Amino acid sequence: MPQTPGGSGVVADPQGFTLRSPEGVTYRVDIDHGVLSPGNPLLASYLADRQVIAFTGPTVDSLYGSALRAYLRAWLAPGSWSTHVIRTGEQHKSLATVEQICAVASERRLGRNGVMLSVGGGVTCDVVGFAAAMFCRGVRHAKVNTTLVGQVDVGVGVKTGVNAYGSKNALGAYHPPHGSLNDPVFLSTLPPRQIRSGLGEIVKMAVIGDRELFETLEQEPGIFIRATGHDREDYVLRRSMELMLQELCPNLHEVDLARLVDFGHTFGPAIETGSGYRIAHGESVAIDMAISSHLARRLGLIDESTCDRIVGLLHALGLPVLDSGTCRPELLREAMRSARSRRGGRLHLVLPSGIGSAVFSDDVPDGVLVEALRALAGAERQAIGAGRR
Amino acid sequence: MPQTPGGSGVVADPQGFTLRSPEGVTYRVDIDHGVLSPGNPLLASYLADRQVIAFTGPTVDSLYGSALRAYLRAWLAPGSWSTHVIRTGEQHKSLATVEQICAVASERRLGRNGVMLSVGGGVTCDVVGFAAAMFCRGVRHAKVNTTLVGQVDVGVGVKTGVNAYGSKNALGAYHPPHGSLNDPVFLSTLPPRQIRSGLGEIVKMAVIGDRELFETLEQEPGIFIRATGHDREDYVLRRSMELMLQELCPNLHEVDLARLVDFGHTFGPAIETGSGYRIAHGESVAIDMAISSHLARRLGLIDESTCDRIVGLLHALGLPVLDSGTCRPELLREAMRSARSRRGGRLHLVLPSGIGSAVFSDDVPDGVLVEALRALAGAERQAIGAGRR
Repeated sequence: MPQTPGGSGVVADPQGFTLRSPEGVTYRVDIDHGVLSPGNPLLASYLADRQVIAFTGPTVDSLYGSALRAYLRAWLAPGSWSTHVIRTGEQHKSLATVEQICAVASERRLGRNGVMLSVGGGVTCDVVGFAAAMFCRGVRHAKVNTTLVGQVDVGVGVKTGVNAYGSKNALGAYHPPHGSLNDPVFLSTLPPRQIRSGLGEIVKMAVIGDRELFETLEQEPGIFIRATGHDREDYVLRRSMELMLQELCPNLHEVDLARLVDFGHTFGPAIETGSGYRIAHGESVAIDMAISSHLARRLGLIDESTCDRIVGLLHALGLPVLDSGTCRPELLREAMRSARSRRGGRLHLVLPSGIGSAVFSDDVPDGVLVEALRALAGAERQAIGAGRR
Repeated sequence: MPQTPGGSGVVADPQGFTLRSPEGVTYRVDIDHGVLSPGNPLLASYLADRQVIAFTGPTVDSLYGSALRAYLRAWLAPGSWSTHVIRTGEQHKSLATVEQICAVASERRLGRNGVMLSVGGGVTCDVVGFAAAMFCRGVRHAKVNTTLVGQVDVGVGVKTGVNAYGSKNALGAYHPPHGSLNDPVFLSTLPPRQIRSGLGEIVKMAVIGDRELFETLEQEPGIFIRATGHDREDYVLRRSMELMLQELCPNLHEVDLARLVDFGHTFGPAIETGSGYRIAHGESVAIDMAISSHLARRLGLIDESTCDRIVGLLHALGLPVLDSGTCRPELLREAMRSARSRRGGRLHLVLPSGIGSAVFSDDVPDGVLVEALRALAGAERQAIGAGRR
């Protein structure tokens, strides 16, 4: 278990992980089956003796709203909790929704010791987390992550935020969750496209840091969609969470703007936003990883077979690797300018240097970008022509 | 100089103060004459080598905009700075204004290393500070405080925020300024009512912690309005800043919700909001202090002469001590409920126990509140009848 001398690091236990950052931030990320089962004390342990408002989106409310209310009724004092359904979707991931959440909390007299609980995917947890960060200048946020992206990515970190002026996650706060609960049971009701979106983030962690995880995905491309057994699923979930936490821990507040977890997140946000959110987050990450792999190959960081293997895994998982509507040189150049600005003047583009390792690049010559796009498009045409896609 | 063993505390020097909090937050609060004079390097030292957007309100822009631009032109590289005028006033202290500020920063490609500089009063610095807290999840904020309230209160702390759903400072963030500059020169163009509003906050610091400061105000009730000499003014400014910083330092993030600096801020916010902001912030603080002094007298914490002396100073400074439109028992009881909620379930009402000392009270019997209001109103009627007011 990697732990720095100062006592910071990520410590694993059967129930999940405890993160202790060098600046003293501590929080739990749990993994458990059936967190809304009336007999499971885990979620209640993060809420006990405090006023709680649970926020969900319409979909989670229709699927799990009754179970959630039954759970809260069983564990919390009458009058100390309530639920509220918020609008979800990227178009509602806005400051206006955050203000509405806070208005609800104010009407229901949630105090400084209150808890905002979010049960949902990335959008729900991001907006409720941001609301918790600014309500009374900060109240507790506990979250139950119901999507795969949530469980391996958004849900395990401290970033909260909203979209603004056409820019993805433009505004936000670092607000550590008091507890973050990942329950594989929720994944069974997730549409396949949302599973695939989460797999995009898992491939990201595998490429930058874990060859074994990569190979597991190659062996089980239908994981979380077709039956592959709980052990395999739990291994992939736990390992992805752990890799993410380890990358985040020493740099929780992104003081260092060169982050390996930004693999897939340089061109990705521009592709996602540029498509008007027609392309889902994890899909945009996949497309970015395919482009970045071809860039890495052009720049001599990986050979052709490694590049094909990464793009091949994305295909096998059912993820897109190219989008003719957005993958134009001018949009991708603009994406790099925007990333450079976000990252303090340097590009810090993450490129694979193998399966399980990656490096940063601060300069992508224009010719290389155009050639990489052409090679990726050519390979796609060939694959389609050969009937492999 | 009070300094805790861990190295935290407030250290004074000829130029101002350095605050080091126990959790490791460090920032400067400077006091200097002529911070916008082209030859003064102080402000530039907080901005050098970074992209800067300076935000002001219309009034500050019309009075000091040219001087500000000349200063930035003299010290910063061409193309690295710009200015923008925002709407001010409590009605524009909103999330919408924060989003507009961030949109301007985004359009002008302010990166993560950029600086938002606010030059203005409490509203300007609060909204720009909150924007700086959430833009890219946090960029540097430097501030030049141009009002007396800003220089002795808002400007020296780490709180930023906006009003929402009819509630004062309902949403916000703790975002330490990179530097906070207080220049008495700005006070010369301040309307007397705004000076008085600042004096309200200074009386607060004096009553809870410094009899000498209180007596100085008694001797010089026209301070900052009529000529009293730079030495007296600098003493009052420096001492108020220092007292405030010392109170804030060990509890920067308000983990302890029992705060002496909340004297005047239990009934005050409800009076200010309830008046539709007809009553200025410092005026609402003054009215709260008068009510609280009469409560303290009823509860046997101070004698009649001490109570009269506090209310008398407020009068001498030209501050209101009662407002018939808002000072009704039901509004004040609602204010206590709201404060209790903000303060984690306990009231923590600050009451004077002398000139220069204060205590907390968690319970004000209803009868005592009504009697205190009656006594205050009676004293006012008498004073008016005697022609003393």
